[in-house]
Amino acid sequence: MEKMNLNKHISGQFNAELDDIRNRVLAMGGLVERQLEQALDALAGLDAELAKTVIDGDHKVNGMEVAIDEECTRIIAKRQPAASDLRLILAISKTITDLERIGDACVRIAKAAVDKRAKSQEPLLVSIESMGRHATRTLHATLDALARMDAEQAFELHKEDAKLDKEYEGIIRQLMTYMMEDPRSIPGVLDVLWAARAVERVGDRCKNICEYIIYYVKGKDVRHTSYEDMEKDLHQ
Amino acid sequence: MEKMNLNKHISGQFNAELDDIRNRVLAMGGLVERQLEQALDALAGLDAELAKTVIDGDHKVNGMEVAIDEECTRIIAKRQPAASDLRLILAISKTITDLERIGDACVRIAKAAVDKRAKSQEPLLVSIESMGRHATRTLHATLDALARMDAEQAFELHKEDAKLDKEYEGIIRQLMTYMMEDPRSIPGVLDVLWAARAVERVGDRCKNICEYIIYYVKGKDVRHTSYEDMEKDLHQ
Repeated sequence: MEKMNLNKHISGQFNAELDDIRNRVLAMGGLVERQLEQALDALAGLDAELAKTVIDGDHKVNGMEVAIDEECTRIIAKRQPAASDLRLILAISKTITDLERIGDACVRIAKAAVDKRAKSQEPLLVSIESMGRHATRTLHATLDALARMDAEQAFELHKEDAKLDKEYEGIIRQLMTYMMEDPRSIPGVLDVLWAARAVERVGDRCKNICEYIIYYVKGKDVRHTSYEDMEKDLHQ
Repeated sequence: MEKMNLNKHISGQFNAELDDIRNRVLAMGGLVERQLEQALDALAGLDAELAKTVIDGDHKVNGMEVAIDEECTRIIAKRQPAASDLRLILAISKTITDLERIGDACVRIAKAAVDKRAKSQEPLLVSIESMGRHATRTLHATLDALARMDAEQAFELHKEDAKLDKEYEGIIRQLMTYMMEDPRSIPGVLDVLWAARAVERVGDRCKNICEYIIYYVKGKDVRHTSYEDMEKDLHQ
């Protein structure tokens, strides 16, 4: 009896630890989402002050990555989790890497907002803003799927990335035309182009996180899998 | 006595398993290195056939990532490793993600070699080739440090990335001038620019792998750490 209580107690602590890293990864996601919103606001309003806030805030994102990863390793070593608990921890450990990289993308977007050359290309920033809002919605929905560990939503979002890619290609074409029409604009337009690329990368990162959610829920690694096979795995 | 033998037997099997994933990650590294060399050869010689070999070969890299990651999870669940064994497995699990992304970069470089627009920019490809060889040497040395789990070499290589970044910036400036002088060249030059960016990313990935080597050997997460602090950690 006493042993049973002890086991229960230990498993209660273990569950609390798992809840804790889940909450921490969601907090990190919330921070990254705010960084992305502010970076896009800074770019849209060419607000150097706000851009600086984003750039200065990146170390917090980095710190969270290292701290959560350390905690993941500690839990694996101490609790020796199996099956779905282990998958959860490994999925979290991979998710935070992608969140940190989204944080880096935010810094790149913010840097374009303080760049004097990009400022001369103000009209071009409108199209990035629209793609940026799309990326923000995708990130928000991805974090939502992560909070609820919703594999169906993760699968739907995974497909969303192709739309962002299309939007990005359209912007690249637009920027190309602009450069050809006015070669003096090239350095400034390239800065805008790097920002657009950073936004597009946010979509790729969200796609990765969706794959980890599906991996956790379904116990199956769906990276490099076609949508058809992925759908079969989801509904079998 | 029998139990001791059994323990020895189990730990012998465990060591064999660890050796096995170490060998597999090195084999994956070898494949990626070959992909990079061939992608750069294809670009330098504008050899569409060789480029196709690289593009077709990427699924092997992807397959190795998934298989090794699965094996890492299996070992953690079955062997419940602690301390340095666990760090080894987690470092490998992260390394293969970066190797797979280097594989994606190879595909992007190879695609530039089959692109008709890039072909019109043949003189520009020379500077990428030089940076590409630098990146190949960095990857080779990184895999060498990984094979010997040499934290000192990993630290030296980690600094190398800054040089590749400088080379990349020089190329971007060169491409920019070229576009400004001849606006009709812009679409073709942009293809070259994407290939240059892919090469630069190889350096970033090598830097990540070096951080995992240091993490394994020193038990310390050096991501987002200054060189000075990193050096202190290494030699304390």
